[in-house]
Amino acid sequence: MTSYQRFVLVGPTGAGKSTVGPLLATRLGLRFVDLDQTLEQAAGRRITDIFEQDGEAAFRALESEMLVRCLEEDGIVLATGAGAVLDAGNRERMRAAGCVVHLHAGVRRQLERLRDRGDRPLLALVDREATLEAMARDRGAHYAAVAHLRLDTDARTAHEVVEALFRALPLASASGGARHRLDVDSPSGPYPIHIGAGLVADGEALAAALRGRQALLVTDANVAALHAPVVEAALRRHRPTLDLATHVIPPGESEKTLDRWREVIDALAALGATRDAAVVALGGGVVGDLAGFAAACWMRGIDVVQVPTTLLAMVDSSVGGKTAVDLPAGKNLVGAFHPPSAVVADTAMLATLPDRELRAGLAEVAKYGAVFDAHFLGWLEAKADALLVRDPDAIAEAVARSCGFKAEVVARDPFERGDRALLNFGHTFGHAIEAEQGYAGAVGGLVHGEAVAVGMVLAARLSAALGRAPMADADRLERLLARFGLPTRIPAGLSPPSLLARMRLDKKADAAGLRFILWDAAGEGRIARDVPEAKVLEVLAAD
Amino acid sequence: MTSYQRFVLVGPTGAGKSTVGPLLATRLGLRFVDLDQTLEQAAGRRITDIFEQDGEAAFRALESEMLVRCLEEDGIVLATGAGAVLDAGNRERMRAAGCVVHLHAGVRRQLERLRDRGDRPLLALVDREATLEAMARDRGAHYAAVAHLRLDTDARTAHEVVEALFRALPLASASGGARHRLDVDSPSGPYPIHIGAGLVADGEALAAALRGRQALLVTDANVAALHAPVVEAALRRHRPTLDLATHVIPPGESEKTLDRWREVIDALAALGATRDAAVVALGGGVVGDLAGFAAACWMRGIDVVQVPTTLLAMVDSSVGGKTAVDLPAGKNLVGAFHPPSAVVADTAMLATLPDRELRAGLAEVAKYGAVFDAHFLGWLEAKADALLVRDPDAIAEAVARSCGFKAEVVARDPFERGDRALLNFGHTFGHAIEAEQGYAGAVGGLVHGEAVAVGMVLAARLSAALGRAPMADADRLERLLARFGLPTRIPAGLSPPSLLARMRLDKKADAAGLRFILWDAAGEGRIARDVPEAKVLEVLAAD
Repeated sequence: MTSYQRFVLVGPTGAGKSTVGPLLATRLGLRFVDLDQTLEQAAGRRITDIFEQDGEAAFRALESEMLVRCLEEDGIVLATGAGAVLDAGNRERMRAAGCVVHLHAGVRRQLERLRDRGDRPLLALVDREATLEAMARDRGAHYAAVAHLRLDTDARTAHEVVEALFRALPLASASGGARHRLDVDSPSGPYPIHIGAGLVADGEALAAALRGRQALLVTDANVAALHAPVVEAALRRHRPTLDLATHVIPPGESEKTLDRWREVIDALAALGATRDAAVVALGGGVVGDLAGFAAACWMRGIDVVQVPTTLLAMVDSSVGGKTAVDLPAGKNLVGAFHPPSAVVADTAMLATLPDRELRAGLAEVAKYGAVFDAHFLGWLEAKADALLVRDPDAIAEAVARSCGFKAEVVARDPFERGDRALLNFGHTFGHAIEAEQGYAGAVGGLVHGEAVAVGMVLAARLSAALGRAPMADADRLERLLARFGLPTRIPAGLSPPSLLARMRLDKKADAAGLRFILWDAAGEGRIARDVPEAKVLEVLAAD
Repeated sequence: MTSYQRFVLVGPTGAGKSTVGPLLATRLGLRFVDLDQTLEQAAGRRITDIFEQDGEAAFRALESEMLVRCLEEDGIVLATGAGAVLDAGNRERMRAAGCVVHLHAGVRRQLERLRDRGDRPLLALVDREATLEAMARDRGAHYAAVAHLRLDTDARTAHEVVEALFRALPLASASGGARHRLDVDSPSGPYPIHIGAGLVADGEALAAALRGRQALLVTDANVAALHAPVVEAALRRHRPTLDLATHVIPPGESEKTLDRWREVIDALAALGATRDAAVVALGGGVVGDLAGFAAACWMRGIDVVQVPTTLLAMVDSSVGGKTAVDLPAGKNLVGAFHPPSAVVADTAMLATLPDRELRAGLAEVAKYGAVFDAHFLGWLEAKADALLVRDPDAIAEAVARSCGFKAEVVARDPFERGDRALLNFGHTFGHAIEAEQGYAGAVGGLVHGEAVAVGMVLAARLSAALGRAPMADADRLERLLARFGLPTRIPAGLSPPSLLARMRLDKKADAAGLRFILWDAAGEGRIARDVPEAKVLEVLAAD
């Protein structure tokens, strides 16, 4: 069934760790261990008392010690306290010891589950909702960073969570490299991200995402030649009666137009697609955005299954539901928020990805570390060589961790009204560079990921120039990006004033003026308003 | 401030009646009376005891008696029990006595507010959530039927509710006819519907709905000639710095196309519309659907203010967020769920509406009575002549009550996955007739409202043929529609088998087969699946 000897459950208070744990242990024939209970027995005191009498630091030290001891045993399902992931050492230990499962719950559901319990020390004194929201913000990235699997428990009973876990486990231990499965919350319910080599040829995750009798495969000519036959064969094998059509668009960002979108709409009409039909988007960001927007509009929204074929699409555009096409007046001006019904990220497909696109994708991977988790930046530094030679496990892990960070933030902010804007770290500068070069990635200019790499270094430098963050952190980020073979300096010929003018026109600008995503340190992104333009110009000119 | 002497608060348990009531009374200089408390004092027993000892019927009789007594007083704000609206007599008394305010709360919010209270007799014994949901279903139409104003309390504090009410009150008592204000819940927050004569010329409600610096007025050539200058002048007066552009499309259902939609998109691009810009949709259903869909897609969704100019659009398409355009392959095939940020229904605009369009609108008004409330059907029977001569108060009341019913059902089911389908009463038959005539409303065929009138009679007859409902109710509906001057029989030349074939192709069909909205009696619509086709043919053939 599974090669794992240990399972570690992490997640916030009220996510169901102590309910799901014993059920999962029974299902897998393992022993259930509760870290908090073990700790209380060993200490001879209740956790609330330890908190009150010795303080949180003493409790955390004890917790780390107990975690080490518990993880010495084989054959266990270990439920940890909500704060155990705060310590980087703990996170490393958990992840090295076995399969780490993140049970996620939204604040509202947490509140319901917690009502009338009085034994959560950090929750006792103050407004619970605000506290839980702050905890979700502070700890979300840590859960994302440590977990191999992520499951949403909001709309599932404990038994349903166990069944979903049980079904997901083979993915995490199949031959041919690591497999991962993450749940992403969305306003229309959770959807899975499957990550691993060979998932598309398997076909199972793909077929499981189709509800109806019809599917339209949308892809571009380059990807079609490489991967469309495999997808079609897998779907036909698992769903012999499926009414499947394939629509191929020409490759390239310049094809992300309303005219191409309309062709997809016409293909859905030709298929006679009903409400339960699905669009399967096979390709990079252009195909995903275009096909996703067509699915968003057909009969006011049908399912779309995202099958990203580039690293950039796997870690960014395929997750979170942003779909759009470009207009002559600007990029992504017409679109919809339309979460996929599933994402199938087959890392084996990256074998054929051009080097330059792999590196561009690594820029977005590094972004998650820059914004959310300095430890993940450290992991990337350690694994840079493995990633560049496309070591399957390293790649799958990088994709899974990136998707974990993204899943956390889009669950909190599905319509980008708050925190989700952190994902635009480096993008205000990056978009200005792309626009100023006329989106000339294919003819001597920078492609999106490259422009973002330069933009991130500029954002880190601006943070330092404003006295918000150490310059050493900017240097560290620049070194990592350079190791990935990415540009880190503004291309020659672009003038600071014209770049600044572009930023003023950015889609993210509103009546309140220019907005930047900066950081307080590596791993600590922050939204900043009212940054003096003089400082921006200074940083641009110094580059 | 207001000409009302009495305010009656209705709404479910946990909507905040007993919290808001005293605050509102203080604000208005009136006296607060709690119906339940008055009743307990008069009876010398607690309501739970009356329920237990004498049963619900005895309590309801007592409640009606006390309501009559309380409403004899002037200058009061009266909070009623959640079930007081169940009795039709009570509803008539409340509405005649003063301004009835419906405080709405979603089930989740009710649960939060009710936790730890033990004095709600119908909620004590069973699963609260299921009970509250059933109550919301059963009583929603009654709240909608009785209320002059509807306010959503989910996301508002008691003080905010009082302020919102205070601001809305002048609308309900302005000179020049009755004014109404309803709140509609939506996944993105509540939005107001303003109803009354002269609202557009006033401009206040319109201007209040605009957040940003830019607005695009979308209208058709017919409406533009009549109303666009008034809207533009009102906006310019209230918002002198507004960057306002007007985009005019040719009139007619055949213009609800992707090409016309794209022109609106291009107009938004030309305006340089930012995220806080708004589209103002001035016109009938075609303009509302088209402009709403453009607003849904521009930058993944900007505000749209619906300013319906036909009765049909006021009572149906402007509320609830369904937007779309037609394709050659079918109607409304491409679109989005995009709730408006406000609806301004200026009933004075109906003065210039052609008679045939007024009658078509009355078909949809009658639909709300048919599906939700037999008493409202009775009101329409009583007011038929007043409505046909466009008596301002009768028209405003018909629009407000219709919007109330619609607000209730779309709040419960924003994406049409359940109850909202009840609004399609008569539409499966009606669409088949329209399609079979080739949408020939302008050239000898039936327009949408007329086809729906025929369809409703057929649905009522099918209900009777299946033994679900009395044939007398079908006859009653047919008589009312005939008084409105609407057709009630299938037009000559349409064959039953070809109509049945059209129904099989209906967009509402899915893998589970044909679905009908039927009724169990006048005012009691029900979703029905697996209706034998033979019965459908029989009813079509008998017409």
